[in-house]
Amino acid sequence: MTIQSDYKKLLRRNKDLRVLQSAEDVVHWDMETMMPPRAVELRSQQLALLSRMEHKMSTDPEIGKLLKQIAASPDFDKLGQIERRNLHLIRKNYDEQTALPEKLVEEIAKQQAIAVNVWKKAKKARRFSLFKPDLEKLVGLIKQEAEILMKVKGTSTPYDALVDLFEPKMTSTEIDRVFDGLRKGLAKLLPYISNAPRQPDRNQLKRHVPVEKQREISRALAETLGYDVTSPRAGGRIDETEHPFTTGRYDDVRITTHYYPDDFSSSIFSVLHETGHALYDQNLNAEWKNQPVGSPCSCGIHESQSRFVENIIGRSKEFWEGFLPKLKKLAAPDLDKLELESFVHAINDVKPSKIRVEADEVTYSLHVIVRFQIEQDLFSDKVKVSELPTLWNEKYQEYLGLKIEDDSEGVMQDTHWANGYFGYFPSYTLGNIYSGQMLTKVQQDIPDWGKQLAEGKLEAIKSWLVKNVQSRGNLYDPAELMKTVTGKELDAGPYLEYLKEKYSELYGF
Amino acid sequence: MTIQSDYKKLLRRNKDLRVLQSAEDVVHWDMETMMPPRAVELRSQQLALLSRMEHKMSTDPEIGKLLKQIAASPDFDKLGQIERRNLHLIRKNYDEQTALPEKLVEEIAKQQAIAVNVWKKAKKARRFSLFKPDLEKLVGLIKQEAEILMKVKGTSTPYDALVDLFEPKMTSTEIDRVFDGLRKGLAKLLPYISNAPRQPDRNQLKRHVPVEKQREISRALAETLGYDVTSPRAGGRIDETEHPFTTGRYDDVRITTHYYPDDFSSSIFSVLHETGHALYDQNLNAEWKNQPVGSPCSCGIHESQSRFVENIIGRSKEFWEGFLPKLKKLAAPDLDKLELESFVHAINDVKPSKIRVEADEVTYSLHVIVRFQIEQDLFSDKVKVSELPTLWNEKYQEYLGLKIEDDSEGVMQDTHWANGYFGYFPSYTLGNIYSGQMLTKVQQDIPDWGKQLAEGKLEAIKSWLVKNVQSRGNLYDPAELMKTVTGKELDAGPYLEYLKEKYSELYGF
Repeated sequence: MTIQSDYKKLLRRNKDLRVLQSAEDVVHWDMETMMPPRAVELRSQQLALLSRMEHKMSTDPEIGKLLKQIAASPDFDKLGQIERRNLHLIRKNYDEQTALPEKLVEEIAKQQAIAVNVWKKAKKARRFSLFKPDLEKLVGLIKQEAEILMKVKGTSTPYDALVDLFEPKMTSTEIDRVFDGLRKGLAKLLPYISNAPRQPDRNQLKRHVPVEKQREISRALAETLGYDVTSPRAGGRIDETEHPFTTGRYDDVRITTHYYPDDFSSSIFSVLHETGHALYDQNLNAEWKNQPVGSPCSCGIHESQSRFVENIIGRSKEFWEGFLPKLKKLAAPDLDKLELESFVHAINDVKPSKIRVEADEVTYSLHVIVRFQIEQDLFSDKVKVSELPTLWNEKYQEYLGLKIEDDSEGVMQDTHWANGYFGYFPSYTLGNIYSGQMLTKVQQDIPDWGKQLAEGKLEAIKSWLVKNVQSRGNLYDPAELMKTVTGKELDAGPYLEYLKEKYSELYGF
Repeated sequence: MTIQSDYKKLLRRNKDLRVLQSAEDVVHWDMETMMPPRAVELRSQQLALLSRMEHKMSTDPEIGKLLKQIAASPDFDKLGQIERRNLHLIRKNYDEQTALPEKLVEEIAKQQAIAVNVWKKAKKARRFSLFKPDLEKLVGLIKQEAEILMKVKGTSTPYDALVDLFEPKMTSTEIDRVFDGLRKGLAKLLPYISNAPRQPDRNQLKRHVPVEKQREISRALAETLGYDVTSPRAGGRIDETEHPFTTGRYDDVRITTHYYPDDFSSSIFSVLHETGHALYDQNLNAEWKNQPVGSPCSCGIHESQSRFVENIIGRSKEFWEGFLPKLKKLAAPDLDKLELESFVHAINDVKPSKIRVEADEVTYSLHVIVRFQIEQDLFSDKVKVSELPTLWNEKYQEYLGLKIEDDSEGVMQDTHWANGYFGYFPSYTLGNIYSGQMLTKVQQDIPDWGKQLAEGKLEAIKSWLVKNVQSRGNLYDPAELMKTVTGKELDAGPYLEYLKEKYSELYGF
């Protein structure tokens, strides 16, 4: 009896924490989409207060006491899988949050805010030297954080402790192994694509489509994928921001996108990408709402869902067999001349480029691998902050064959480091790798899924993702989840196979 | 030294509370404007949690301790007016919040939610009997609250304790006195208007104006009044809801409205009304941000600002001399045929009607007086909930000459009672009375203000309101503020004078 009542008390606390976080999600979403410009300072006060309150709730000594009582209870062995997982996740969060001194947490938050501001200015001025001092300070603080987390988490390096924040139990050794194979495979594939005689015509993607029409296309795409944004029972909505994102869980999951009248495919793929994220957040097991187990598994698994929808589904010929007529109708007469084969080839244009967020499906991972390798070196003190631009430019030359002459298009292009998000980048490519392994299993479980897609039938694939991935929430760590879903260890092979097959057909090599 | 540091501690706590409340404002605004329908339950959990946290912050025993220390300090007499007012407001809030048992607060919150739901259904079904049991329960709980608050506040009746929540230090005796004079004055004025040979042509207000144009008109009106909703330094925005409202303070103040394509003046006056509220919230003294003194004085004073903008400015011939050309331009060609005199007469159409929110400026107060008298009787146990419909209908017959045959258009028309807001209604008419007294002073201080208005110059009147009312925030209780601003006691005379003068000119009697 006691163990059950203690457990319930813990869950009640977790529910309060989740409800408060979900309110913070709304406040944060509002900041990016709706907030009057003058409210910037007030908003940062609101967010700081909410995160301070959340930290206080997460580190309440009562949680430690309850966890201890439960662990010591003679009835502990009678707990089921879900109860144990919830307790594990609460324990993990409690240990990590209590281990970090409040002063350090505050210093990091403050330095993040400063660094982001300075980064914006330095990027605009195209001068890394302006950014360097504050980035150094921030890296110094994050190193302190990583050292502490390493001990709590029991990882073998401080960097692995950071990776573990986004991809639990993943190590850089493991990432190194799969990224190395992936990099080699991509290096082999790229020349075939570049040298293929059949090249796409990107000009067709430059046709003018007014924003209002693009909005309708976005809604139609979202709803085709099962993400309801218009009905009286809708649990989502689409708004506009500079940098698209997804926020919320369960009954209130919102995505954003950006419309360019002369680049209509940009919003199509950002909406598909974010819809992939939104479906995950909406389809977490409803019975676990507000429990730790009712949260997404990891950033990498989250990314696997967005990539699956954006790329594997959304850039396939089959999907566009079904959707191109709808697209033409919604954009009429602006896109009347689009032709299936040529359009699908154009949206799969591959070309090494300097900016990660604009990269195609094939070269994208190379951008991430560069960042991962640099982060590893930075956190093992092999390189200094001052050496980052040189190292960056060398790697872009080596992996992508590009000469970076401007740090704004190089080491300063992303906001992650200015925000203190080290250890996050690998998740992007892990997502791709996971999605490849999932695809192999999908092909076994639903042999005619491509045919279904071409007929506009998405029920089977959507159910597969819900059943195998989304509804499992945080019941497993990512590697364990992948093993459960696919029966295999982490392997970049299937993703490489998928790319080879798709691009050889498109480019004819 | 100690007293100053204790005082600072109190202000720091008050700041946290205000910042949290401002986050709640955003969450609440989102619920009314943006929220996906499926999120209803989550949203009520978020709002309940936030209000629980705010209650906890307001009743922290540390506040009581600090207040006691400060009161006992030998340096207390050295405190200035603002410090003393802040301490008074913190003490008042602390005493009231701690006096109410948590269980009662929760029961009221729960019963409010139930009653609102039942009220909606009963109103739709046009059956008061469905609403009665839950309204009885709610009134019972609010009576308990009022008894407790009466003791803390030292009011002479429980009902006065409720009034004090919205209009500090105001008593029903005082309200009775001024409402009685007002009612008699209105009863005299009304027949002159109804029997006047010159009657307005309301049909011109039924011209079709598409919603998109109305949105532009709203923005133009707001910005003419100095409420910035479009610039890169904007501190406001306009959105759409069923029931217009204003929310926020200082740098994030938002209004909402509702657009009817065949009733364009509806959004014009709701935007002017809410803009009046917004200007108050924006123009509170910036030095007092997050201090108790940096909050609005009372609901009645708030209403005086919205009524001043909506009616005294917004329904004046002078204002439309300046704005009608802009309106025509923005709505072109839909309103090309409007003509100043006739249009101004039409927007000042007076006719007794059943629904308060649709009432004109002259009969509006009669609706409020009915509610005030009924509330007084209800809380002094002179009438029972079951007798409300009969009492309501009698008073509508007597004061407005209308026969109410359907409780949905009668006693169930407003949401206030279902929400437990008893004691709130008088504020609406006090706002009118205050605005009349302010007008008298404005006419003395800016003799040519009407001329300025006609020339589209609003600087002087806006500055007057900021200086005399808005920037004074909560430095005084409402009666004290009115005395400071006008040198007079509460008096319905000036408001009646304003009405008589304006309507005799419009209707020609």
